[in-house]
Amino acid sequence: MRATTIHAARDIRVGEVADPRIKRPTDAIVKVTASCICGSDLWPYRGENPIRAGATIGHECIGVVEEIGDEVRDVRVGEFVVVPFCHCDNTCAHCRNGAQSACAQLGFTTSGQAEYARVTQADGSLVSTGGVPDADLVASVLTLSDVMPTGWHAAVSAGVEPGTTVVVVGDGAVGLCGVLAAATMGAERIIAMSRHEPRQALARAFGATHVIAARGADAEQEVRELTDGVGVDAALECVGTDEAMSTAVAVTRPGGGVGFVGAPHGVELSARTLFDKNVGVRGGMAPVRRYLPDLMPLVLERRIDPGRVFDLALPLEQAPEGYRAMDERRAIKVMLQP
Amino acid sequence: MRATTIHAARDIRVGEVADPRIKRPTDAIVKVTASCICGSDLWPYRGENPIRAGATIGHECIGVVEEIGDEVRDVRVGEFVVVPFCHCDNTCAHCRNGAQSACAQLGFTTSGQAEYARVTQADGSLVSTGGVPDADLVASVLTLSDVMPTGWHAAVSAGVEPGTTVVVVGDGAVGLCGVLAAATMGAERIIAMSRHEPRQALARAFGATHVIAARGADAEQEVRELTDGVGVDAALECVGTDEAMSTAVAVTRPGGGVGFVGAPHGVELSARTLFDKNVGVRGGMAPVRRYLPDLMPLVLERRIDPGRVFDLALPLEQAPEGYRAMDERRAIKVMLQP
Repeated sequence: MRATTIHAARDIRVGEVADPRIKRPTDAIVKVTASCICGSDLWPYRGENPIRAGATIGHECIGVVEEIGDEVRDVRVGEFVVVPFCHCDNTCAHCRNGAQSACAQLGFTTSGQAEYARVTQADGSLVSTGGVPDADLVASVLTLSDVMPTGWHAAVSAGVEPGTTVVVVGDGAVGLCGVLAAATMGAERIIAMSRHEPRQALARAFGATHVIAARGADAEQEVRELTDGVGVDAALECVGTDEAMSTAVAVTRPGGGVGFVGAPHGVELSARTLFDKNVGVRGGMAPVRRYLPDLMPLVLERRIDPGRVFDLALPLEQAPEGYRAMDERRAIKVMLQP
Repeated sequence: MRATTIHAARDIRVGEVADPRIKRPTDAIVKVTASCICGSDLWPYRGENPIRAGATIGHECIGVVEEIGDEVRDVRVGEFVVVPFCHCDNTCAHCRNGAQSACAQLGFTTSGQAEYARVTQADGSLVSTGGVPDADLVASVLTLSDVMPTGWHAAVSAGVEPGTTVVVVGDGAVGLCGVLAAATMGAERIIAMSRHEPRQALARAFGATHVIAARGADAEQEVRELTDGVGVDAALECVGTDEAMSTAVAVTRPGGGVGFVGAPHGVELSARTLFDKNVGVRGGMAPVRRYLPDLMPLVLERRIDPGRVFDLALPLEQAPEGYRAMDERRAIKVMLQP
């Protein structure tokens, strides 16, 4: 099949690799109809994570079930499905507790930016859309494989509730989905931090009531002014850097919460600062499967439109250009179509 | 008045100091009838916190209102009151949000181990017991000034709910009150970590269903075995050391929470570990005033008996011996009576 592969930092190619096959009776193979590039794909792209030369890359996709293993009971060939980037049996103690991203049989999509993807724990992981989505829904359905549930997880982890004041640090696709999540959960004031006009506009479209273009101490000061010196109830840290975490903690009011979903790279958490402020910190890899029963109807009924994070769609063959566009921040998020 | 003072590491004295006076119209002076030594008093005692030579010490006390400032409206001279160690106006934005330990007008009891204590923000801080407590209630009422609300805050911060499985790291008075808090909140299984037989016995009396005497990796393994490899829903870190925090995070299940109330000394929090486990961390100085409306009736109606943490009562004049007894772990918690 045609697949995106990574060979070294900034060396992304599209070429022929072996088709994924059913390895375990609980597996399924999905024919990918749309996939995309994740902010976390940029870590290896930029050489900041280890790379296995020639490995396929990509973990966000949707498509049609092509083949199922002998023990797959609920998923049927021909169904149109969302593929959560983290696969789970949805029956183990962790899954039953809402921690599907810590499933005892955790697996991951490893060839999402390709023609086919293998899904482990197909019954637990895959969620049917109930038919081929209308063309205008494809982008939003695609976000359900990772980016929208990840923004949602940030909001849940931060403790967003109706009437709260929220700040979102990070104007990537996850941060923008965090804005949309907070708005959907009924936050009253949502402060998006962004210096990029198109992202500011999308943040506002998703429900941000304020946009702060400053960073660091200046940004913290602006949040203090907006909140009468009190700070926000909840901060969504959607970057994964120390600066972003530091800002998130600094602007959160005593007793408030920080939800973080950017894989931490060099993040220092000061127990003393958290203690002095009584600020909670919670986050991690999103338990995508947990949120899909809530998010799928919101998308299919067109009540939320997270697909607007895609501002560039390319054929799969142009994946290298997609990576360049995201790396250079020319695109918020890039869809790839096999 | 007679008061306990600290002069250097391990140099505690009782002597004459000036009586505290009303400095602001919102102050009150309380005649102390019972006070006690806090685990956190041992930090300066052991030379691990800075010391101002000759300063009074002690922040936990109860007693009778002796004098009030001109603007005190709700508190009356002669009332028997609990003095929260952290004073608050109970009206500012932080107090209204349940973060009284971050009050805009935060103050502290600074001569608790003495004959008199000055209380700032008397109206916001002091809570009447509705009369002089019966002799058998004095110890439990005294715990309401700090140690019991602090154990309660650990349980609240960790997310203890009915039916949960909880571990308590630390068998000091705070940890023991954490056990009692978790039991009162309806936790189903409470694992107390303690190597000291009298503390183990008190933990069981307070509701611990299991006691683990091991530490470090062995203790973590025992928790895993007790929880079928899953981990606990909530961990209460009631020490403030890196080892205790590390154990608390390690034994918590994915999606669970760690509540920490020991002032952190050298605690390293790994953002990556928290991320990988989706474990939340929350804690800090207890907003004592917030919890008193719930805890006071529990004590006065004899439904909880946190006063059992006191296993040594001394006259105020013997405060130095009280410090030695706690430092050497000969006593769990020491009451001082002026």
